[in-house]
Amino acid sequence: MLDFTYYTPTKVHFGKGKHKDVGKIISEYGYKKIMMQYGMGSIKKSSLYDDVMSSLNEHGIEVIKMGGVEPNPKLDFVREAVKIAKKEKVELILAVGGGSVLDSSKYTAMGAKSDCDVWDFAMQKEEIKDALPVGCILTIAAAGSEMSSSAVITNMELNMKKGCGSEFNRCKFAICNPELTYSVSKYQTACGVVDIMAHTMERYFTVCEDTDITDRISESILKATINAGKVLMENPNDYDARANMMWASSVSHNGLTSCGRINALAVHQLEHALSGEFDHIAHGAGLAVLFPAWAKYVYKHNIKRFAQFARRVWDCTNEEDEKAALCGIEKMADFFKEIGMPSRLSEFSIDDSCIDRLASLCTFNKTRTVKSYVELDYDVIKEIFKSCM
Amino acid sequence: MLDFTYYTPTKVHFGKGKHKDVGKIISEYGYKKIMMQYGMGSIKKSSLYDDVMSSLNEHGIEVIKMGGVEPNPKLDFVREAVKIAKKEKVELILAVGGGSVLDSSKYTAMGAKSDCDVWDFAMQKEEIKDALPVGCILTIAAAGSEMSSSAVITNMELNMKKGCGSEFNRCKFAICNPELTYSVSKYQTACGVVDIMAHTMERYFTVCEDTDITDRISESILKATINAGKVLMENPNDYDARANMMWASSVSHNGLTSCGRINALAVHQLEHALSGEFDHIAHGAGLAVLFPAWAKYVYKHNIKRFAQFARRVWDCTNEEDEKAALCGIEKMADFFKEIGMPSRLSEFSIDDSCIDRLASLCTFNKTRTVKSYVELDYDVIKEIFKSCM
Repeated sequence: MLDFTYYTPTKVHFGKGKHKDVGKIISEYGYKKIMMQYGMGSIKKSSLYDDVMSSLNEHGIEVIKMGGVEPNPKLDFVREAVKIAKKEKVELILAVGGGSVLDSSKYTAMGAKSDCDVWDFAMQKEEIKDALPVGCILTIAAAGSEMSSSAVITNMELNMKKGCGSEFNRCKFAICNPELTYSVSKYQTACGVVDIMAHTMERYFTVCEDTDITDRISESILKATINAGKVLMENPNDYDARANMMWASSVSHNGLTSCGRINALAVHQLEHALSGEFDHIAHGAGLAVLFPAWAKYVYKHNIKRFAQFARRVWDCTNEEDEKAALCGIEKMADFFKEIGMPSRLSEFSIDDSCIDRLASLCTFNKTRTVKSYVELDYDVIKEIFKSCM
Repeated sequence: MLDFTYYTPTKVHFGKGKHKDVGKIISEYGYKKIMMQYGMGSIKKSSLYDDVMSSLNEHGIEVIKMGGVEPNPKLDFVREAVKIAKKEKVELILAVGGGSVLDSSKYTAMGAKSDCDVWDFAMQKEEIKDALPVGCILTIAAAGSEMSSSAVITNMELNMKKGCGSEFNRCKFAICNPELTYSVSKYQTACGVVDIMAHTMERYFTVCEDTDITDRISESILKATINAGKVLMENPNDYDARANMMWASSVSHNGLTSCGRINALAVHQLEHALSGEFDHIAHGAGLAVLFPAWAKYVYKHNIKRFAQFARRVWDCTNEEDEKAALCGIEKMADFFKEIGMPSRLSEFSIDDSCIDRLASLCTFNKTRTVKSYVELDYDVIKEIFKSCM
């Protein structure tokens, strides 16, 4: 088992109706003026917006509203939010939404405590040294951003989507009410299932051995997510399935699944290039296509581990390790199809003319490789993308 | 799934040689004067004491030393430590040891920030409103106190051992180096295995259903602990087994295993009465006797759950649920015996003349019951103890 630091200071308030406590929770920290970020207006379709505003008003909290965060949140929006946050001297950023709103809020929080441009954080040109506190009311179970140390942003000028990780990115609190996810569409729910599984599997496939407890916890999260996903395709309003999926989203990406292992998200880096380039591709859908392709490429580097995955998560019974490994990858791909995810890039109406560009984006113009338990260089990444067409 | 709050702010520094970073870690928080608590001197038999002192000195941290914490730590010692902590105005309590040293340190930290007697916290007469920060260097994997919100203390005048839970009891940091546990005896290692399993199982047996993810994570922790325990009975210096067991100790008791469930530790309450009354009984050994006895008494209240436990954790193949449930309890008891734990109270050289007194202690003189998924009153508790003789 490799050495690790585990630090998940986010206080999670999980359960029915919990979003109505937001004013109380924030006022207990002593904050009086906040910026609230949210998406394209869906929170106004339900009573969520009114519930939140009424709780904040009740506790005398002044709110600067920044609606309009887009999926794959945009750098320009964040730059504007940073300006306003500084001018208004807000004390906390409240994200009401899913991963995109959280990403935008986290970048805003970093920018508000810095003099440099936030894109420099994404490009690793500047070190993150401070940030405003971020709290969230989660409305989609997927990104795990509510407890994670990461955030992702898209630069439309450069057509680049980049993540960055920092302990300053951990939310101070996360309000997780599974009922708020009833309205998430089947397609977006399936995208969430894939994202949660990908967060878990990226760390699972590794050369680090003897992490029995982390292996088993990861398998648990995968099993529970698969089970919840199946139920939700039939009955989107099943509270317990929504709750299991929501908690899986948090624990898949809060550090628990990387304890004692290398923490490298290779497929995520490929997918960020893809959905950064093609704004109409949902992150989870991109992962659903790329993950089996990546797995087929790398499984030979640790057949035993892929066989364990196949037997424990997918109940494959093949005695021979390589056959079991392939069975596991196939069952994973079948499951993604079963819940309505694409299996080929062509389903997004794109062709292989973009492959060079995607591979360039992943490798910073061939100057870097994508690190994971198998290092991926420009040519290999091209091959993986090609196999998805 | 029931509503829950999850809050584990402890920063865990896990791995080889990590205890040598203690001075750096403490100085980064800005603390300059600390109290260091430790046990009966075993930390001086290895290089641990010297390593820690040298790291603290190097960072200019003033240390008030309080050695001599006994197993089942005593109220008198804590009262004395509180006096000194107040007089010396220490800023942090550093626990170097196992669960007992942590218990003592946590109570000292609470006492140092309060005007009332610390026993009032144990007896729930006073609310815990503040505490000094506590950090630890863990030397035994067992109690899970390094990340938990609980602490236990023994009042020798009243022959009473009492736990208390509070968010103020969470360590600020925990330094977990599995190598430091190489010297833990086979017997104490086995006690630790039982304690970790008990922390997990107490929350697992419940009437709350539809906590698929928490069920599976709990089963993972149990499996990994059983595996590590078996390896360590053969090879106490197996790093990965020590590491898996140490991390299992933390996650079994940091809140993860109670997410979505009722958090009531019934068997622990029975065992605290037992080892509070008989100082020579190790907590884990007491649990090893009591857990199967309790399980045999309560399994009928949720046969399905005990059957799931049997099939998933112990690979019982019985088709009929009740037979599977009983198979699981038997395999658990067999495993405890296999790793050298007692199976009857008579092995501690005690007889049934103490049963009335033990049942009284558990129920505050018949004025309360022990809450868990099956409520235990005075008469039932007597029966359970009797069945262990």
